[in-house]
Order: sequence, then C-alpha cells, then structure tokens
Amino acid sequence: MKSPVRKESCHDPRTVVQPDKGALIRRLNRIEGQVRGVNKMVSEDRYCVDILNQVAALQSALDAVAMLLLESHTHGCMQGAIKSGNGDEAIDELMAVVRKFAR
Amino acid sequence: MKSPVRKESCHDPRTVVQPDKGALIRRLNRIEGQVRGVNKMVSEDRYCVDILNQVAALQSALDAVAMLLLESHTHGCMQGAIKSGNGDEAIDELMAVVRKFAR
Amino acid sequence: MKSPVRKESCHDPRTVVQPDKGALIRRLNRIEGQVRGVNKMVSEDRYCVDILNQVAALQSALDAVAMLLLESHTHGCMQGAIKSGNGDEAIDELMAVVRKFAR
Amino acid sequence: MKSPVRKESCHDPRTVVQPDKGALIRRLNRIEGQVRGVNKMVSEDRYCVDILNQVAALQSALDAVAMLLLESHTHGCMQGAIKSGNGDEAIDELMAVVRKFAR
Repeated sequence: MKSPVRKESCHDPRTVVQPDKGALIRRLNRIEGQVRGVNKMVSEDRYCVDILNQVAALQSALDAVAMLLLESHTHGCMQGAIKSGNGDEAIDELMAVVRKFAR
Repeated sequence: MKSPVRKESCHDPRTVVQPDKGALIRRLNRIEGQVRGVNKMVSEDRYCVDILNQVAALQSALDAVAMLLLESHTHGCMQGAIKSGNGDEAIDELMAVVRKFAR
Repeated sequence: MKSPVRKESCHDPRTVVQPDKGALIRRLNRIEGQVRGVNKMVSEDRYCVDILNQVAALQSALDAVAMLLLESHTHGCMQGAIKSGNGDEAIDELMAVVRKFAR
Repeated sequence: MKSPVRKESCHDPRTVVQPDKGALIRRLNRIEGQVRGVNKMVSEDRYCVDILNQVAALQSALDAVAMLLLESHTHGCMQGAIKSGNGDEAIDELMAVVRKFAR
C-alpha cells in the first residue's frame, strides 16, 4: 500500500505550511548540531578524514531535507499551479531547482 | 604563478592542524548561520522554492569546505603516509572518502 | 524573452515523440563516439588522468541529455497527467527519477 | 581480508597499462551498447521516464569506470610520483580530477 501523498497547503501570497513542519524543523535542528560538531572537530585538530566523514553525513542529511521539500512542493504548490493554468511557469521554476540538485 | 601548496601539519596520534584553521572555522560559523536561516524560513512558512534555493547554497558552501579539507589532506597527511611507506593504506582511506563525495 | 516551452507530444499507449528528436539523436550519436574514444584510450594505454577527463566530459554530455528529457517530460507528459487528474501518480514517478539524478 | 591493491604500471612517456585492462574494455563495450539502447528508445518514441531510467543506469556504469580508473591511478602513477619527489604536482592533478567527479 502506498503512503498517503503529503502535500503542502499553498496560499497567496506564497506562504506554505510544510507537511510535518515540526519534524522538518527537528531535522534542521539536528543538522545545525552536526555543523557545530564539524566546527568543533576542526578546532580540536581532529584527523581530517574523520572530519570529512562527518561532512559527508551532513550532506546526506541535507539531501534528505531537500528531497522532502521537493516532494511536498511538487505534490502541493506545483500541482496546484498546473491545475490553475500556470503550469509552464511552475515547471520552469521546478526545473531550475532540480538542476541545482542534479549532479 | 601557482599559489603555494597548502599542507596540514600531521602529527601522531592523528591530530592535524588545518592550514588556515581560522578561516575554516569562520566558514563553518557562516554555514551554521545558513542552517539556522533555512530553519527560520520553514518556521515562517516561506515559499518552498525559496527554501530549496537556500538549501542548494548551503550545499555548495559545504562542498567547498569538503574540497578544502580534501586538498589539505592529500598534500599533507596522505603524502606523508606515502613517503613513510604506508601509501596503500592511506590511498584506500582517501578513495573511501572520495567515493562519498563523488556523484 | 523566454524561449517557447518545449513539450513532448504524449500519446497512449505511452509513446512520446521528443521535441527536437533529431537533435537528441545526434547528441546520443556523439556520446556513443565519446564512449568509443574512451575505450580506445584505454586500449592504447593512455595516461589515466587524460582518460578520466574524457569520462568527465562524457558524464556532462549525458547530464545534459537527462535534463533535456526531464524538461520535456515535465512540461509534456507530467503536466498532461496532472490536468487529467492523475497528478499524484505522475509526480511520484517524476520524484523517483529526480532522486536518481540528485546528488 | 582485503583484496590485493590494484596498481597500474606507469611508464614514461606516460603510457599506463590499466590493471584488468581487458575487463575495463569489456565494461566500456557494454556502456557503448547502453548508449545505443538509449538512442534506439528515443528513435522509437519510447516513454520518457523509461529512457531517463536507462540514462541513470548508464551514468552509474560510467561512475563505476571512473572510480576504477581513479583507484588504479592513485595507487599507481600518483603514488609513484610522490615517491619520486613530484608529489605536489601529482596531487594538484588528482584534485583537479576529483573536483570534476565531486558533486
């Protein structure tokens, strides 16, 4: 069975309540802690490979946040814009963002 | 003219003073601020595409930190290990990190 | 001024004429030639860094093809599916592809 | 147990016999076939998401080739250059390549 689609609620002027907003904020709090942890490792002259591994973990955590935001955006605001007849503009905007996260 | 090679100073037991340690710490302070900024945007129900653009900027800032660490590591500790006859181990360790940052 | 939006023409059962199909095929012909070029470099024992640079160029050429396909897909089939009321399914399918190209 | 380290044999003027050269050539032959397959899918107006999935598989196959080349290069030529006292130059060259494959 598929999980229910998670959509943002999109309102004008462009305020968007993220689905599971609380969970997203907790993820970002943890990511902030990870950045502080990397900073501390540099301050304490820790071994560079150990620091690099923590930076990689941090990047993965940020990638996950980006994918959550992208998923709720496409199901929510973008789909809404397409149904309202502003599809091409919304899709150009999406593609500009996707290019930034594409390799 | 080439800029001078920037090497870490590598000591046992594996403490490594990063070149331009202060600049690296300032970069990470800024990155921490960027994470807080993204968190605030989510809290304030900002438009998802605007948040995604800030996450992409954050990723680029972290990529730059990773490349700085990788550069000082290869010129410093890794090169030192190779000269000391522990090259294959040091290179396996490097490749494991490079794979994490490779696409 | 913006360039006109390039959409596929989408028909059931899922045949899709790519916009600028001829140009896309020519790109892929060139990419095939690049792969043969890399293969020849390996056969001729060429310097590994020179080969790696050609592989990187090849990846960039493929990335460009992927982004062209993704752009025509979102403006064409995906937008069409959303307008026909099959949006969530089409968006899940899109996100599964985007994840493969995201870092 | 670790697998034995796979090094290239490096000779001047910069000819490099890749370890498992035959296997590498067979991989590239398969990749060439995959490119032809993608081209055929475009020609036959196949569904864009199916094509994109094949392009993603092709990228993964190329990434694997790049990592094999990078691994044999670092253990082989790069390590040799460092031992010969040309380390900083060899490492700058490596980092320029790594940046191309990093995200």
